[in-house]
Amino acid sequence: MLSFTTYSPTKIIQGKETISELANLVPKEGKVLIAYGGGSIKKNGVYDQVVAALAGHDTVEFAGIEANPIYETLMQTVELCRKEDVKFIVAVGGGSVVDGIKFVAAALRQPEDVDPWGLLTGSLTAESALPFGTVMTLPATGSECNPNAVISRNSTQEKLVLFTSVTHPVFSILDPETTYTLPYNQLRNGIVDTYVHVLEQYVTCDQQAPLQDRQAEAILSVLIDYVEPMLETSPPSFDARMILMDAATWALNTYLERGIIPDWATHLIGHELTALYGPAHAETLAVVWPAVVAYKFDAKREKLAQYGERVWKLQGTTEEIAKGAIEKTKEFFAKVGMPLNLSDYKINADEAAAEISKRFSERGMCVGENGHIKPDEIAGVLELCR
Amino acid sequence: MLSFTTYSPTKIIQGKETISELANLVPKEGKVLIAYGGGSIKKNGVYDQVVAALAGHDTVEFAGIEANPIYETLMQTVELCRKEDVKFIVAVGGGSVVDGIKFVAAALRQPEDVDPWGLLTGSLTAESALPFGTVMTLPATGSECNPNAVISRNSTQEKLVLFTSVTHPVFSILDPETTYTLPYNQLRNGIVDTYVHVLEQYVTCDQQAPLQDRQAEAILSVLIDYVEPMLETSPPSFDARMILMDAATWALNTYLERGIIPDWATHLIGHELTALYGPAHAETLAVVWPAVVAYKFDAKREKLAQYGERVWKLQGTTEEIAKGAIEKTKEFFAKVGMPLNLSDYKINADEAAAEISKRFSERGMCVGENGHIKPDEIAGVLELCR
Repeated sequence: MLSFTTYSPTKIIQGKETISELANLVPKEGKVLIAYGGGSIKKNGVYDQVVAALAGHDTVEFAGIEANPIYETLMQTVELCRKEDVKFIVAVGGGSVVDGIKFVAAALRQPEDVDPWGLLTGSLTAESALPFGTVMTLPATGSECNPNAVISRNSTQEKLVLFTSVTHPVFSILDPETTYTLPYNQLRNGIVDTYVHVLEQYVTCDQQAPLQDRQAEAILSVLIDYVEPMLETSPPSFDARMILMDAATWALNTYLERGIIPDWATHLIGHELTALYGPAHAETLAVVWPAVVAYKFDAKREKLAQYGERVWKLQGTTEEIAKGAIEKTKEFFAKVGMPLNLSDYKINADEAAAEISKRFSERGMCVGENGHIKPDEIAGVLELCR
Repeated sequence: MLSFTTYSPTKIIQGKETISELANLVPKEGKVLIAYGGGSIKKNGVYDQVVAALAGHDTVEFAGIEANPIYETLMQTVELCRKEDVKFIVAVGGGSVVDGIKFVAAALRQPEDVDPWGLLTGSLTAESALPFGTVMTLPATGSECNPNAVISRNSTQEKLVLFTSVTHPVFSILDPETTYTLPYNQLRNGIVDTYVHVLEQYVTCDQQAPLQDRQAEAILSVLIDYVEPMLETSPPSFDARMILMDAATWALNTYLERGIIPDWATHLIGHELTALYGPAHAETLAVVWPAVVAYKFDAKREKLAQYGERVWKLQGTTEEIAKGAIEKTKEFFAKVGMPLNLSDYKINADEAAAEISKRFSERGMCVGENGHIKPDEIAGVLELCR
């Protein structure tokens, strides 16, 4: 285990009818922006609950933050916040809205004549951000309790990660009932996203971090044990949705990463596939993760075997259990309805590999723990999920 | 699972040579109190590291906070802080020093003419506290990352818990090398303290919190797997001490409690035994926990069986596994050298039960999850660890 710092100051308020807590959590002084996405919150009653809770506050709204939030839209949010002198933001929706608001919050503390896209390319560092809280309606990204965000830019077809230490939500409210109206594919994607978040921090080379390992196995086991009630819709299971929201938070509240070097190759390749061809984030993860670990099988054999033995209760040689663990994971993804190949999305593996290699090469990016997948190896990975 | 709020804003900095981080973590403005215990930090070099890191700060010192920190001493600390107009405190030591400073930090924000003992009896509520950080040298109490403290009072032989939402350390530094000079019994006590912290939040009636259960099992399993290297002293294992410090933090950073009702009967009875007769905190836990779960066996049977099956890999009927789990736990305590009976400390069970029943009765305290151990049942519990 390496030296580490953990810092997770977000207050999480989870349970039934918790949105009303906004009244006390949001500062009374100054204008409050309510930011949301395509309007689903107006159909399921969440918008009404938020507005009711903030009745005593001076509010303004911004609607239309997209799935895979887009720089061009977020710059309009920044402009509105400057015009209205907004002092606090409430992001209502899934990870996309929350991620978008993290970028907005950091951008607002940059000089007006500087393009905040530099926060994503690394040419700018966020030293502070406007405070914001979230009402999280989609258990998936863990964005409710970490400072990171993923932002896309239309003009360049790029999708980059914002890493800062200043964009933790002040609070996040998670009411499982807000998930009741989610379509099946969003729920399913949320489960797979959560699962792969854990895998990317757990299935690495051995890092002598046994507690982190077991905490990762805890989340994976619970997702496997409860996947059916989590997906139940008629009627939805409050208890299972409560567990799912909690699991999604824990998969990416940054604690699993303490003292270890995570992989994240699957995410970085997946982001490019979404940016280039459009599949949902979790859909790319279900395709790419089995290919990444098969490609780096020798480095990950021991950890795959531990995963197979403890989580899937497989028996056999290390080699057999490690291979079995990949198969079991693919079965789990297939069971919830995820396609497993690029061809299912009509993506040409050779073309995709060429473009992604080029981009990683231009950015000087090697991916995976220890940077052990070089730009010219992307074709080798994508070959395995053709 | 019940609705819950989690809030754990303490920044944890763990690893080799991390004490030097104090230079950046402690605010430069205003006087800083360095508080510590009996002086062991002067022998093992920790004091020198702290002083060197704070060379650029204006500091004052308070030495002599006892094991089981005492109100009478802490009031002297309060007085010194008022006299010197201290703006930040660095608590250096184990849980006792840290707990003591939590009380001091809250007491300093009470009016000078009010006795802050009321913070412990419940007649006062802490609305704010002086900010403080810790350098934790003894992995055991988890006090480095929660707001709670246990304080004793000589004049009344009482030992009470401070519950506040404002006494989280701003930061805690955990350098495993600071534990190298700990005597065996303190290390052993730290392991048992950590283990029982987890058990008290885990072995309850079923609360439909499967992720919390597995996160608890993760810590227990790691303590069992690594107990020997954790206790190794010639030379100490840096890696195992790193794991132990991390496990101690996780056992009581309040996350295991989310959405569930913990037990804590063992701790509350144990506190009285320490206050009345003097055994170390962990020593009381090793004696009392097996008795509490045996006394409440029917209510805890299912959870004991889950614990026995998952953590100890026991097989058999539910009844057999549940009973086996208690035995395995006693064996674990005995293996590290903990006595298992009150008689080992020359404590008369009848006399102790009478006095503790009287105290709980006077305070109107029923203990255990759902308050299911009444004051007049203490004799029944202590009978089982006579």
